[in-house]
Amino acid sequence: MSVFGGIEAGGSKWECAVGTGLDDVRATTTIRTTSPGETLDHVVVFFEREGPVDALGIGCFGPIDRKLSSPTWLYITTTPKPGWAHTDVAPEIRRRLSVAVAFDTDVNAAALGEHRWGAARGLDTFCYITVGTGIGGGGMVGGKLLHGLVHPEFGHMRVAHDVAADPFAGVCPYHGDCWEGLASGRSIEARWERPAEELLDKPEVWELEAHYLALGLVSVICVLSPERIIMGGGVTAAPGLLPLVRHEVTALLNGYLSSVSVGDEIAEYITRPALGGRSGMLGAIALAEAL
Amino acid sequence: MSVFGGIEAGGSKWECAVGTGLDDVRATTTIRTTSPGETLDHVVVFFEREGPVDALGIGCFGPIDRKLSSPTWLYITTTPKPGWAHTDVAPEIRRRLSVAVAFDTDVNAAALGEHRWGAARGLDTFCYITVGTGIGGGGMVGGKLLHGLVHPEFGHMRVAHDVAADPFAGVCPYHGDCWEGLASGRSIEARWERPAEELLDKPEVWELEAHYLALGLVSVICVLSPERIIMGGGVTAAPGLLPLVRHEVTALLNGYLSSVSVGDEIAEYITRPALGGRSGMLGAIALAEAL
Repeated sequence: MSVFGGIEAGGSKWECAVGTGLDDVRATTTIRTTSPGETLDHVVVFFEREGPVDALGIGCFGPIDRKLSSPTWLYITTTPKPGWAHTDVAPEIRRRLSVAVAFDTDVNAAALGEHRWGAARGLDTFCYITVGTGIGGGGMVGGKLLHGLVHPEFGHMRVAHDVAADPFAGVCPYHGDCWEGLASGRSIEARWERPAEELLDKPEVWELEAHYLALGLVSVICVLSPERIIMGGGVTAAPGLLPLVRHEVTALLNGYLSSVSVGDEIAEYITRPALGGRSGMLGAIALAEAL
Repeated sequence: MSVFGGIEAGGSKWECAVGTGLDDVRATTTIRTTSPGETLDHVVVFFEREGPVDALGIGCFGPIDRKLSSPTWLYITTTPKPGWAHTDVAPEIRRRLSVAVAFDTDVNAAALGEHRWGAARGLDTFCYITVGTGIGGGGMVGGKLLHGLVHPEFGHMRVAHDVAADPFAGVCPYHGDCWEGLASGRSIEARWERPAEELLDKPEVWELEAHYLALGLVSVICVLSPERIIMGGGVTAAPGLLPLVRHEVTALLNGYLSSVSVGDEIAEYITRPALGGRSGMLGAIALAEAL
């Protein structure tokens, strides 16, 4: 039986694992994201110690380059993260560990994890959306991970912003009040001047958050017609938020897409990850398995 | 060599054709959309006279039901068009002509036509969007026509609406100021109290139209990451509109997705159909061919 490596490569930490799947994760480690050189040194040491693995999957913060004909194929590209722009993460790991590497976005990896073992089993068109510091989205369409020209950037959709009701300008350095600019964890902290986890007792925070999340979800629903939407990330874990989001999505659709909004089914339609915080790491293992 | 039938079934007329592809359309007819019974009678007469065909494709106004397990599989479902809700269009044609029938949305058929012979040749992830009386969208992801839970309904995305600058409430009976509510041909006529074709000399009409179209396109780009966007329909044929749309999309993305917005390439990125008004009809033939 093949053994796989999985890496969920994030802006603040890299979660590494060796295993064969959901019920057999044999070793894990968490590496703090510092410089690319130092971070990759720790990654290589871990897999040399716990390996060998037959293939390795990486779900990575982006933007990343998956275009086969590109000179920066499998690189992290224009990330604003200091030191990480235009780095050859996947090729370097492949070279140093002499192993086949699958490389995709963190959200596509999480989507694949949920498809393989979690809340998207048996579906062929669905989304995985994370709302944490930022907002990202990925998923499958017709049974294949969504890529396209580059890869999706759900967070940078524009959403309706009533500046009379919410004069906050948004935090996106590119767009101000795009979806991420208005509804990410960073935007919540900037708007209310306290981190989201200290605002749990303020209903106005979560009503506004649900409103913006629902506006973005309606666009996702109208464009992709997903069979399910899985909402990961720290912000969507706030107690009571998802019921508000479901209610607002139903209200915004206003009966137009009856398949989506009928009664209690909306709770299964817009749902939390079944794998909890492990979607990305297990998804990275699934990326390797699919090679 | 196989001969195919194609039907572009619209709310006001049905275009029917017999042929093998782009350069070999042997017979065509246009049938006015009246009642389902009368319309289908004319369709059957045409194909009995010009056939037989080996398979028949239908690109149909929606919403339609493509769920194999559904009792209304291949029906038109909840259309507001009088007399047409819950009609078994495709099964009836299949039965009366004793021929295999492929059934999809009008926009997916047009997308397939452009993929087979037009502006989307060689691409595997792209959109076809029509802006006419309403707004619809379809396309391919990973080389397959986009379906999902139902099928896309691009026109019903919400877009940012600055009611101080544009107090018009929108024309969508479900959502008021959704994308279709603000930017369809029907909305242009309602807002400016004249049909779009009589407003070609009013720059303010087309600047506002370009703004709303661009807002919707940005959401489509962020969700699907299409390699190209093909803009069909009567409204997007207005002289000078697409250059304004391209400029506005570039401005809204603000350099974030550099692959999309670099220089002159945007004119190839957001483009008119190569097959002109024949995308849907030829696409219906391609649907039959793909059976």
